[in-house]
Amino acid sequence: MANCIISIDLGGTRIRGARMDESLKILERHETYTLASEGLQAVLERIKQMIREVWPQNGDTVMGVGVSAPGPLDPKTGVIVAPPNLPGWHNVPLGDILTDAFNVPVYVGNDANVAALAESLVGAAQDGYRHVIYLTQSTGVGSGIIVDGRMLLGKRGLAAEAGHMPILYDADERVSTVELEAAGPGMARRARARIEAGESSLIVDLVEGDLTQITGSTVGKAAQQGDPLALEVVTRSARVLGLGVVSLLHLFNPEIVVIGGGVTALGDLIFNPVRETVSKYVRDPEYIVPIVPSVLGEDVSVFGAGALVPTKGGIEDIQHLREVM
Amino acid sequence: MANCIISIDLGGTRIRGARMDESLKILERHETYTLASEGLQAVLERIKQMIREVWPQNGDTVMGVGVSAPGPLDPKTGVIVAPPNLPGWHNVPLGDILTDAFNVPVYVGNDANVAALAESLVGAAQDGYRHVIYLTQSTGVGSGIIVDGRMLLGKRGLAAEAGHMPILYDADERVSTVELEAAGPGMARRARARIEAGESSLIVDLVEGDLTQITGSTVGKAAQQGDPLALEVVTRSARVLGLGVVSLLHLFNPEIVVIGGGVTALGDLIFNPVRETVSKYVRDPEYIVPIVPSVLGEDVSVFGAGALVPTKGGIEDIQHLREVM
Repeated sequence: MANCIISIDLGGTRIRGARMDESLKILERHETYTLASEGLQAVLERIKQMIREVWPQNGDTVMGVGVSAPGPLDPKTGVIVAPPNLPGWHNVPLGDILTDAFNVPVYVGNDANVAALAESLVGAAQDGYRHVIYLTQSTGVGSGIIVDGRMLLGKRGLAAEAGHMPILYDADERVSTVELEAAGPGMARRARARIEAGESSLIVDLVEGDLTQITGSTVGKAAQQGDPLALEVVTRSARVLGLGVVSLLHLFNPEIVVIGGGVTALGDLIFNPVRETVSKYVRDPEYIVPIVPSVLGEDVSVFGAGALVPTKGGIEDIQHLREVM
Repeated sequence: MANCIISIDLGGTRIRGARMDESLKILERHETYTLASEGLQAVLERIKQMIREVWPQNGDTVMGVGVSAPGPLDPKTGVIVAPPNLPGWHNVPLGDILTDAFNVPVYVGNDANVAALAESLVGAAQDGYRHVIYLTQSTGVGSGIIVDGRMLLGKRGLAAEAGHMPILYDADERVSTVELEAAGPGMARRARARIEAGESSLIVDLVEGDLTQITGSTVGKAAQQGDPLALEVVTRSARVLGLGVVSLLHLFNPEIVVIGGGVTALGDLIFNPVRETVSKYVRDPEYIVPIVPSVLGEDVSVFGAGALVPTKGGIEDIQHLREVM
């Protein structure tokens, strides 16, 4: 009989669940749709069902349940505040609800923060790094930051939202953010505006002429096929993300920057302009560090949620990293 | 016989020195000009002379010498890397030089970081705050950040340079930073450009028609006298600083923001637009915290340098705050 961990990744689209050993090796993994529009109670029920599905049948001891959830949330109390993509969820004490249901300790963390934890423990930043920036570029831009081996949470656990850094203050003094300019919806918006203004693009074919169907993913596909307009839009989004990285390098002086999220599946189309922007705009080459892709893919927050659960054995560094969770 | 601390604030214009007791009360204080253009050896000699001047004559024990210096510098080794306003200073092992000369431990910190330490210990953020942002708006924009009671230094001690956050990315893909837009020289540049383009302003009288003489201080004086152009320039610089604060609130979720530096002598002309910008652009009111003026004035880094020296008695929290210095 061994110890194990239950891990839940609650996303706006999918719920993923896993049972892991103490070194975060996945022993069993399930996945279902969140169907968030069905409301709070239905989703809570699906989370409990997922936990039951991955619960050990061999008598192993469950050390606790770790949950990754969309922010804002309070990691100290396990209360989900009001995630934009979970309608009906307002101040839900998810930690207490699951503790009552399963009678084990429950630990709740923001999805981007636990992803940073995961990449630091079993991913791209696992080789003893103590100063780590994790960014995700997908339908939003999120971040998790590890400062001298401890998760950056801030007073109320609302850190670190790099996507909400203002990044544009143009001649008309219009303010935008890294997320609004660099995430998928921003790419879609920009491509559509240029097409509506009369430019031609392969994107029009990909959406069969219905410009309302353009997504970040459409723009990415067209860019991979060499479409000039799509390439410009992708490059610009990567440059804005790169400017965000420049801010983070100057603020945190980290050792490594890990970037994940759906958009980074475009590989060099994203990473090259990010790295070029960083080289061009850092104050001093001393600030430049490796900027590498996430290696944990869609399971990054599954690993991270599991890492929230304190264990006696397992990975040496976890306790330190989760010190303030 | 008691313990005491020697504190040195090495600036581009002035060297300030003090002897303090263990609770950072100043017992004696001297000041001289840096005369940086005379070169490294001359400035080093003036620093040593300053230390001798404030050295105790009553047999008190010197626990150490704390030095505030312009970055970049390495707080672990006490090496001054290459400050723009200290010509001839390249990789100067100031810590070792002073240890050899005075035979006591020497601690070196970046001026903005030690200012944050000072405001947290004996200034505007002293009431038990563990998550503190300190910003300075003067000839540059600098910052020091305390994360959960510990100074944010990063891997090589190069954190936290908030002034170098990119804040502008316009249609021409031109990039600017918080410092370039919000510090004194940026204010002067902007005012001069508008006057050269034909606008009228009291500033012209203040510099007796010689537009090359416009400084941030000139713009500030004109703004205090109600000059519309100067008021617009000051307000814009405060708004850009406010956008920097928005980034920092989302990244760090601090408890308080303290702003010092010469430009903030303009009081509400700066603080009102900063607070308005923050209220307008934070993602959620939960991120809003008090934004207050520095209270330690020109001695902020004198106090901060003294606080670098470990003491047995004195202020309870110091040891924790300087944990990673």
